[in-house]
Amino acid sequence: MSIPTPTPNDHFSFGMWTVNWPAQDQFGSATRAMMDPVYIVHKLAEIGAWGITFHDDDLIPFGTAPAERQAIIDSFKKALDETGIVCEMVTTNTFSHPIFKDGAFTSNDRQVRRFGLRKVLRNVDLAADLGATTFVMWGGREGAEYDTSKDYKSALDRYAEGIDTVAAYIKSQGYNLKIALEPKPNEPRGDILLPTVGHALGFIACLDNGDIVGLNPEVGHEQMACLNYTAGIAQALWCGKLFHIDLNSQKGVKYDQDLAFGHGDLINAFSTVDLLENGFPNGGPTYEGPRHFDYKPSRTESEEGVWESARANMTMYLLLKERAKAFREDSEIKDLMKSSGVTALAEPTLAAGETIESFMADPSTFEDLDPDQVADRGYDYIRINQIAMEYLLGAR
Amino acid sequence: MSIPTPTPNDHFSFGMWTVNWPAQDQFGSATRAMMDPVYIVHKLAEIGAWGITFHDDDLIPFGTAPAERQAIIDSFKKALDETGIVCEMVTTNTFSHPIFKDGAFTSNDRQVRRFGLRKVLRNVDLAADLGATTFVMWGGREGAEYDTSKDYKSALDRYAEGIDTVAAYIKSQGYNLKIALEPKPNEPRGDILLPTVGHALGFIACLDNGDIVGLNPEVGHEQMACLNYTAGIAQALWCGKLFHIDLNSQKGVKYDQDLAFGHGDLINAFSTVDLLENGFPNGGPTYEGPRHFDYKPSRTESEEGVWESARANMTMYLLLKERAKAFREDSEIKDLMKSSGVTALAEPTLAAGETIESFMADPSTFEDLDPDQVADRGYDYIRINQIAMEYLLGAR
Amino acid sequence: MSIPTPTPNDHFSFGMWTVNWPAQDQFGSATRAMMDPVYIVHKLAEIGAWGITFHDDDLIPFGTAPAERQAIIDSFKKALDETGIVCEMVTTNTFSHPIFKDGAFTSNDRQVRRFGLRKVLRNVDLAADLGATTFVMWGGREGAEYDTSKDYKSALDRYAEGIDTVAAYIKSQGYNLKIALEPKPNEPRGDILLPTVGHALGFIACLDNGDIVGLNPEVGHEQMACLNYTAGIAQALWCGKLFHIDLNSQKGVKYDQDLAFGHGDLINAFSTVDLLENGFPNGGPTYEGPRHFDYKPSRTESEEGVWESARANMTMYLLLKERAKAFREDSEIKDLMKSSGVTALAEPTLAAGETIESFMADPSTFEDLDPDQVADRGYDYIRINQIAMEYLLGAR
Amino acid sequence: MSIPTPTPNDHFSFGMWTVNWPAQDQFGSATRAMMDPVYIVHKLAEIGAWGITFHDDDLIPFGTAPAERQAIIDSFKKALDETGIVCEMVTTNTFSHPIFKDGAFTSNDRQVRRFGLRKVLRNVDLAADLGATTFVMWGGREGAEYDTSKDYKSALDRYAEGIDTVAAYIKSQGYNLKIALEPKPNEPRGDILLPTVGHALGFIACLDNGDIVGLNPEVGHEQMACLNYTAGIAQALWCGKLFHIDLNSQKGVKYDQDLAFGHGDLINAFSTVDLLENGFPNGGPTYEGPRHFDYKPSRTESEEGVWESARANMTMYLLLKERAKAFREDSEIKDLMKSSGVTALAEPTLAAGETIESFMADPSTFEDLDPDQVADRGYDYIRINQIAMEYLLGAR
Repeated sequence: MSIPTPTPNDHFSFGMWTVNWPAQDQFGSATRAMMDPVYIVHKLAEIGAWGITFHDDDLIPFGTAPAERQAIIDSFKKALDETGIVCEMVTTNTFSHPIFKDGAFTSNDRQVRRFGLRKVLRNVDLAADLGATTFVMWGGREGAEYDTSKDYKSALDRYAEGIDTVAAYIKSQGYNLKIALEPKPNEPRGDILLPTVGHALGFIACLDNGDIVGLNPEVGHEQMACLNYTAGIAQALWCGKLFHIDLNSQKGVKYDQDLAFGHGDLINAFSTVDLLENGFPNGGPTYEGPRHFDYKPSRTESEEGVWESARANMTMYLLLKERAKAFREDSEIKDLMKSSGVTALAEPTLAAGETIESFMADPSTFEDLDPDQVADRGYDYIRINQIAMEYLLGAR
Repeated sequence: MSIPTPTPNDHFSFGMWTVNWPAQDQFGSATRAMMDPVYIVHKLAEIGAWGITFHDDDLIPFGTAPAERQAIIDSFKKALDETGIVCEMVTTNTFSHPIFKDGAFTSNDRQVRRFGLRKVLRNVDLAADLGATTFVMWGGREGAEYDTSKDYKSALDRYAEGIDTVAAYIKSQGYNLKIALEPKPNEPRGDILLPTVGHALGFIACLDNGDIVGLNPEVGHEQMACLNYTAGIAQALWCGKLFHIDLNSQKGVKYDQDLAFGHGDLINAFSTVDLLENGFPNGGPTYEGPRHFDYKPSRTESEEGVWESARANMTMYLLLKERAKAFREDSEIKDLMKSSGVTALAEPTLAAGETIESFMADPSTFEDLDPDQVADRGYDYIRINQIAMEYLLGAR
Repeated sequence: MSIPTPTPNDHFSFGMWTVNWPAQDQFGSATRAMMDPVYIVHKLAEIGAWGITFHDDDLIPFGTAPAERQAIIDSFKKALDETGIVCEMVTTNTFSHPIFKDGAFTSNDRQVRRFGLRKVLRNVDLAADLGATTFVMWGGREGAEYDTSKDYKSALDRYAEGIDTVAAYIKSQGYNLKIALEPKPNEPRGDILLPTVGHALGFIACLDNGDIVGLNPEVGHEQMACLNYTAGIAQALWCGKLFHIDLNSQKGVKYDQDLAFGHGDLINAFSTVDLLENGFPNGGPTYEGPRHFDYKPSRTESEEGVWESARANMTMYLLLKERAKAFREDSEIKDLMKSSGVTALAEPTLAAGETIESFMADPSTFEDLDPDQVADRGYDYIRINQIAMEYLLGAR
Repeated sequence: MSIPTPTPNDHFSFGMWTVNWPAQDQFGSATRAMMDPVYIVHKLAEIGAWGITFHDDDLIPFGTAPAERQAIIDSFKKALDETGIVCEMVTTNTFSHPIFKDGAFTSNDRQVRRFGLRKVLRNVDLAADLGATTFVMWGGREGAEYDTSKDYKSALDRYAEGIDTVAAYIKSQGYNLKIALEPKPNEPRGDILLPTVGHALGFIACLDNGDIVGLNPEVGHEQMACLNYTAGIAQALWCGKLFHIDLNSQKGVKYDQDLAFGHGDLINAFSTVDLLENGFPNGGPTYEGPRHFDYKPSRTESEEGVWESARANMTMYLLLKERAKAFREDSEIKDLMKSSGVTALAEPTLAAGETIESFMADPSTFEDLDPDQVADRGYDYIRINQIAMEYLLGAR
């Protein structure tokens, strides 16, 4: 038994806003001083991280004059160079300033929509300049408290217009960037547009430039709607749209907790890592991107606790990775996967070359089948799950 | 003040399983005797309904011999003829018999998948024969309790294969039928595939025959994931995929309650009816299909209470319709819709003919804009909502 | 149809922090300037309110020097005198300053516990000085994110010690004050101690000075745990512990929304007002205290919207009051209450003077009873509820 | 690394209804044949269980004639004798038969209330006869779907009358039995009376015979209200009211899942076992009763899977017990418990002998304290929790 140590090969990245959250919340003021971005880059390198990500305003305070802005960017680039830390993703804050109180791309005020779009486009240039390959868009204020205050059709039109415009700009500039939408059901708005992985997938299918638009699903956001995160990213993978991930934890349907990865729903974290590391049991598309953490160090913690929490995310991931690999390699599990039909589900329901007509004419599938007899088998799912639990607990 | 009376022109339809639910639940046995389908058709006509829908097994018990099956169908058709009741939708029970305990289209057992597909195809023929125009598919057992027991990619492959096969069959037969998928997050499975409106929209976009596949969203199912039903069907409408609806009520995130429409989240019911009857404020696609109720008369009720509850659904809808129309016609509301930007959201963010380049070169949108000044306006959303509440309460 | 106008006779009171919330939230900065307390008092009087309440820090910023503190208090008293506005309740902020990041009465740091207790005791003196009769205590930071970081037994010991000390002080000073605990399940802590009305009732029963300790239940807080607010305050009334109320709205299990009263779960708001105004159907303890609103004007609103929202709370209450009274007086409802057994539930199960022995020896209650026959009745609950809905909608 | 084997010394007991659930649910018919109670007793002995519990109707079908009833009881006793299995708890089914459709003790129909009370009292005699020491009461149908259909005050009066009568009977007979109430928020009723541990504690405090009435909290029931089970049983222990427990699992706020213990929220299961086995960190009341499982083997499983699932519950408990013991004994944890104040919370806030007056006169606690300085410490809770996680995962 030993605790694994993270290295850059693990491709762990952190949002700058995670370790640098000053711990001001809805009911209380900041408990920690903010740190310098350059210092953060060096600290992340020190603890074994590989990458960093940020909102424009995390690095460059809202309203910073152009010259100062460039100086900040230059010092940040220098820190990246010195440490080897990769800026893999950039995102835009369109939710904190009061101008965005009714949203950015879907604000009822067109001035705001235009301002928001400009802020995003400027940030696309910065993302490309820093070599980021993913451009995350979380529309945290795109939504409503009251159905009476928003024409949802117009809102979706404007949302699509905004995303399509950004995507068109990326293409026109030849940037090596893909857009990843981040769904969330609610908070800070009563209901947010594109509330789940599914809604974002359905939306992307209606875009003109949807080919470079995919998803950045966050563990806690799906769980705030009582949805299964692993099943959610599985569907995104199935559609070829899992472009990026936000790993953290949540304890059930409540406010957005942003706990360290694995400190909430541990069993779901296990199946998530199992999918990310080992792929679907029967093969198929895999996720090759960064293992990105989007969490908040609890408000009770000092800076020391902040770095402790950053390490906790990585340690949890590595422990779950070890356990998931061992689970998959277990010979009893391999047998059970077969006997319980997990592998057989890969076989099409119609045989190769079988037509609907011949299928409907085959009495062995329906007329002559005894449903009670077919029903009279067990699937042994609890046995499989219990073995998984024993691996998870390090007991095998 | 008066209570409106439903007529067939209102296009209200009921699932046969709703009024005929014997009130057996997870923790108790049936409290009501089941009624004859022919009697139900006549009773629905009597109370002012327009249509009826059913699962195959609601009309024809599972395992009925072919000759008896035809006799049942004939007597049902006769009742439809006598009453003028329309059979507008048919759906298939692939969840009650033990053979479906691990699902139908996505069961790990291929025999089950083939049996389930045959059962559905047989029911497509019946639906077409009865003149139904919508074929609802709720995959209530397509899911899992444990992530370890299901290859989600294979499951989605099989689900897509199944739906595509049914759609291909409908096309090949020239039936005037569309498929409407019904999402649900959980119950009776721990997590169900296609848990929300969004997930189903994303799934349909990946089908080969997705052009005739849309949605049948149920109020309570979305609310079981704490999602806004009105916003959900709005996105389905936006995508051109709102093929059918299931109206009922739910009181928050808990087991599937299936209360009478309007007896749960009344304000959301108001905005749902407002959207269905009056469309989006700025125009766009509208829903023209049946007003279909999928609810359960409480287990405490006798048959008299059953019909009382059926009437309650229709009365609630009609009252909300009256109130929503009056709300939309209010002159102060018309002014507020303008001043708060609800109507302005229809205007594209980029002007007609404006290129991204010219937009980015326009300093009035960003460089010269004072965000604090733009932020310094109120949107009057609470005023709008309060007027809506006063109409809802019949106080205006 | 008309919209009722609030007057001081309606006993509506507002938390100063409600209309004065600057709309800074977890994800964004303030959108409104804060107003002067004296101005607020005058505005509340203008719109027909009767009372005001506040946290110490709402009136007197944390850390204000004693002389300035007294000047603030004096100007506040003067405003109360000029307007007739009553300061009916005072509460203490033990959650905003970073010192309270692990709680006040249950912080793991004893210095913090002592500081918190002193802050509360000082505020008790102020409450008494201002003539308040209720002293609300919301322990928003008394809780934990991790079960490993808190000895729950010690925490409850310290919580009880704190409340008992405050109660003892109130008694020793002869103040006409009662303590009202405010439960909340989570946010800002992962889990808060005394999460529901029930947990607080159970806790109070274990206090030494519990006789002057009761409850201040908030609508949204109970609904965040998917609990029925009306049923919750009913149990508090039954125990003689409903000392105060916080009226607002919430749309399901999510972050704390603090919407205007009636703008969330309208049907539950109706039954709440029905209970507060008309009492239990069969009589019993009633609530005679203030109708106190604890809500937040949405972040999209300007000051005009703030006062609009304050009026909305009162209007909704008055409309619901009218409709609840009419519902209770309806003759069909009076008959249904009898036939469905609502009134019969007041009759004890054992007859007057009936012993357990004689009851057990009575074969008509068990041995000779036909359960199926007794079961074969309907309770007509949907009929009752539908009539209630028709009153609620102003259709009767 | 090894998998522990359960023995009777572990005091594991099972509800007969758990392994014997025929897997009929709200949406489907039974998938398993029911087993003979005698067979079940022998099987439980075989897999290492210590005890069994049952509802009257689990052993003796509703309506069984007296002679047959006695024969069933005799054969059951014989099986207990042969195997050494202890019947530690008995409970009464007052929710399945249609007569109880509106509740038993709180039904609006007095005939039902009297019948229900007789059914319970008869079962008390059986419980005593079999040597059970706990009498669980789950009022699953005591509640309502509509606030308009129940006088909550009368309902609580009748509920209290019923419980007090049963308790009085137990005392009068000199039985060695305690009553344990089992809270649940909803399902099968829309809202159930006594929805949480807290509400039951508050209710018990108002009983005449509350001294022999305590709680039987179920993991999943508390989690259905998004409440922390460990914190809930901690409060019950603090009040001296944790009389029995129901261990199982639930994955968030949804229908009642009844998964095997540890297969839902694993981290909360860890802290629950830690509390049950190791007590509060600073000492205090402990739970000495049975480790009782109330779960349902998934509907996909055959009888083989049923026994596999029964073993899974015990294995999970034993593995968590091992890990919790090691966590508590870790020397770094012992240090962290001190430095983070977990142990210091045992110290009263007021010093021994300190009066309120002297406390208020001590400027070091308030006037001279620098809150910012006190706030400027970290609590290291994430470090503690991460070490716990590493023990849980078997990595230490």
